[in-house]
Amino acid sequence: MSDSTRPAPPRTPIWQAIADTLRGEISEGRYQPGDKLPTEAAMAARFGVNRHTVRHALAHLVDEGLVRTRRGAGAFVAAAPTDYPIGARVRFHENLLAAGRRPSKQVLQIELRAATPGEARVLELSPQDQVCACHGLSLADDLPIAVFESVFPIGRLPGIDTALTEVSSVTEALARAGVADYTRASTRLTAVRADAARALVLHLREGDPLLRSTGVNVDGHGVPVEYGRTWFAGDRVTLTLES
Amino acid sequence: MSDSTRPAPPRTPIWQAIADTLRGEISEGRYQPGDKLPTEAAMAARFGVNRHTVRHALAHLVDEGLVRTRRGAGAFVAAAPTDYPIGARVRFHENLLAAGRRPSKQVLQIELRAATPGEARVLELSPQDQVCACHGLSLADDLPIAVFESVFPIGRLPGIDTALTEVSSVTEALARAGVADYTRASTRLTAVRADAARALVLHLREGDPLLRSTGVNVDGHGVPVEYGRTWFAGDRVTLTLES
Repeated sequence: MSDSTRPAPPRTPIWQAIADTLRGEISEGRYQPGDKLPTEAAMAARFGVNRHTVRHALAHLVDEGLVRTRRGAGAFVAAAPTDYPIGARVRFHENLLAAGRRPSKQVLQIELRAATPGEARVLELSPQDQVCACHGLSLADDLPIAVFESVFPIGRLPGIDTALTEVSSVTEALARAGVADYTRASTRLTAVRADAARALVLHLREGDPLLRSTGVNVDGHGVPVEYGRTWFAGDRVTLTLES
Repeated sequence: MSDSTRPAPPRTPIWQAIADTLRGEISEGRYQPGDKLPTEAAMAARFGVNRHTVRHALAHLVDEGLVRTRRGAGAFVAAAPTDYPIGARVRFHENLLAAGRRPSKQVLQIELRAATPGEARVLELSPQDQVCACHGLSLADDLPIAVFESVFPIGRLPGIDTALTEVSSVTEALARAGVADYTRASTRLTAVRADAARALVLHLREGDPLLRSTGVNVDGHGVPVEYGRTWFAGDRVTLTLES
């Protein structure tokens, strides 16, 4: 296990460093949606590179949906990252509507299977109890912003698997399974790298940073009804927390 | 700006994918601190690779401080990621002590300069008002877990620059500058890739995922006294939010 067995750390190409800088300035609000970015010539001078390198960085941001170019007019900020409030009442549809975005969900897979040890602990199940796992994609204005995996204790929620195929809202599916209201008991957040599968559905590159949120929703009696994990595309979503 | 100008997306080497999987299982609590990981032979069988590749993945996790190997005894989980509560009262020292870690900070640089437009807006300053910017490193049990940049409105906080060189706690430095108490007005979270400078001080690779937290602290009258940005090493910290 000597150091010589490990490859040298990868270096960031210049075009990517420039894209990262511009992305950071957009996400910090230095450039607002609709703002024109400096000209290619101005950016080439600022970063000390040729215009081809600037164009390469801009092409990448266009690909990510952050920047739009108009022929002869230049490059413009397409959209700020979606603000997504987290707290006691986490509701995807309400959150996105409040941020002025059109929410939608795509369910990719629903499976019935035994709970893993971690899921059983969090959902307060016996080992090998059955869960319904729902995998899917969350979109804002048709741009994918997150992939999710929600695990439901099917013993407590008869019919949740059918409900999830019929309605796109977890809130409504839980209501059909008898849970009139639920609240978020706890949320855990960290940053992880996108694996190949998540990168593919989010239109990101493998290794790109994702914000992973892990949360437990409980019913009015404090009984866990959902163990959810969501991987947000770091560039497209800012989680907000008001005190 | 055709697709042909962009390089192919990088592929994750197998050893890295295995390291990512094990890291995820550790961070989800499947393996607890002190637990012995499966043998190299068992992991080679599980992932369908040779033992050299498993060893390579483990060496990487050792390097990150997540795994320790003992000659002849195998590989063990070194430490769970530090839980770090976020909410109205964000206090680095208290948070880490509560998580059973020994907190410390290293101030790398303190500079007096004009506020950027973004800082002036957030801190409610006039353009070109002076700020004191403090750059540094937060450690838990001597392992770097985050880099931070805190910006203080020096006009409201005479002597904060000297206080920051004399005490390692922001709470104490603010107290010396006349702010007896402060609370977090808002927090914004997203995932970003580590640039070369942050990767170096955090002992990460360039491009590794960081959780970036942006927050504003206000005094008892609601006046902003600190605009802070912290980049947490995704592998080493889990932000927690109790509802």
